[in-house]
Amino acid sequence: MNKLTAFMHTLCDAAQNETLPRFRVNTVVVNKLDQEFDPVTEGDRKAEEVIRSLINKNYPEHGIIGEEFGAENVEASHVWIIDPIDGTRAFITGIPVWGTLICLAVDGKAELGIMHQPFTGERYYSDGTNSYYLGPGVVARKRLETRGCPSLAEAMMMTTSPNIFAPEEIAAYGRVEAQVRLVRYGCDCYAYSMLAAGQIDLVIESGLNSYDIAALVPIVKDAGGIITDWQGNPVNLLHPGTHQIIAAGCEAIYNEALNLLNE
Amino acid sequence: MNKLTAFMHTLCDAAQNETLPRFRVNTVVVNKLDQEFDPVTEGDRKAEEVIRSLINKNYPEHGIIGEEFGAENVEASHVWIIDPIDGTRAFITGIPVWGTLICLAVDGKAELGIMHQPFTGERYYSDGTNSYYLGPGVVARKRLETRGCPSLAEAMMMTTSPNIFAPEEIAAYGRVEAQVRLVRYGCDCYAYSMLAAGQIDLVIESGLNSYDIAALVPIVKDAGGIITDWQGNPVNLLHPGTHQIIAAGCEAIYNEALNLLNE
Repeated sequence: MNKLTAFMHTLCDAAQNETLPRFRVNTVVVNKLDQEFDPVTEGDRKAEEVIRSLINKNYPEHGIIGEEFGAENVEASHVWIIDPIDGTRAFITGIPVWGTLICLAVDGKAELGIMHQPFTGERYYSDGTNSYYLGPGVVARKRLETRGCPSLAEAMMMTTSPNIFAPEEIAAYGRVEAQVRLVRYGCDCYAYSMLAAGQIDLVIESGLNSYDIAALVPIVKDAGGIITDWQGNPVNLLHPGTHQIIAAGCEAIYNEALNLLNE
Repeated sequence: MNKLTAFMHTLCDAAQNETLPRFRVNTVVVNKLDQEFDPVTEGDRKAEEVIRSLINKNYPEHGIIGEEFGAENVEASHVWIIDPIDGTRAFITGIPVWGTLICLAVDGKAELGIMHQPFTGERYYSDGTNSYYLGPGVVARKRLETRGCPSLAEAMMMTTSPNIFAPEEIAAYGRVEAQVRLVRYGCDCYAYSMLAAGQIDLVIESGLNSYDIAALVPIVKDAGGIITDWQGNPVNLLHPGTHQIIAAGCEAIYNEALNLLNE
């Protein structure tokens, strides 16, 4: 997996050339859906194009699932699942908590994953065995490890927004939020990275597409965390619909939160 | 004001030595209030100590209002208003949207202000005439300018959290949130910096202390924005209680939002 991990970093380098120069400059924001405001920047599209082109050139036998340009060759054993700019709302409002997400799934299982924040220069990634951090404040890659927390009453939670939950999910989510010590909104992929880094204890989200979460699965798992859907099942990366996600730094928090979600 | 602007940057340099090494390491989090979870890190206290010590040494005739160690000599014509780590929740959860806030008020009016984010290396500041950005992506300081926006329906808004509003304020805030195109939570002082940079159009908050907002007043104003309380009055920096704040990038958005707040 070493060569593929290095390739994953190369994909991030290439994507950065398309995303970073467009961060905090006026971009054309278009509506992807009619009813909802779902901004897609030019950077999103250009970055996915360059990532796809590099994969097709270097690993023509691999499949790709991407946010902007859909799925190709997903019957392959190796499938790259990519979101060039996760957190487009953060991107267009100038907040550096968006990230480029790239996952390599092998036979449906997320093996490698990376979250790259080009403005801060941070990379949170799994090489298939361990999770690591590269970025400001470290001279060499640093092992990521989730932290233990005795109970939800002591736990720090993140979610992108209380508005991401469907009407029928709000009560379940609310039962957890009411118990935790601290909740922080507005984090997107950054939330899972902070969980892997042992900064927080719990992330609960819903309505995520496969490309929003795939890269974060091995980062959380290989840092010692737990990440499943709200029923406690492994995240089904090749499932085309949206996903309900719970990620926790330790078993105590995971069990307590999962029980509340399903009460 | 040039010498005082340079001194303000020096204060940030000194504070950084106390805050940045404590970011994303295990810190002792203590409860400042009995009922609420209000984390104060060691970095908060140490940074304020070093800022106060530099002010006392260089400008002994100036007054100081600080988050951690209260007020001294506030009858002076020149009063520094400081929050060493605004966004302590962001700080303890590892998200780089906290900032060191330093304001110099002269005869009760905020003349100079800076928001410094040490992890990203960003500085948003006013020198008393114009607002500027220093940080990644620029080789020299860059003028900050707010942007125009025709109506709330097109506007992007930020607030720290919907939970910051008192029960009697929620309806007023909700009337605005219901109108805007996009709302983003979890930004603290970063929200006002993005407003000054023309990335967003509106910030509405409540429950802010003087040291939470003072530095941001000149940054917003000198970038062309409007910042007042919810009644449309200038922010009273020396008022000891909490403040309701509205900040907008242009008059159209300000007027529309202010009217909704007071409907």
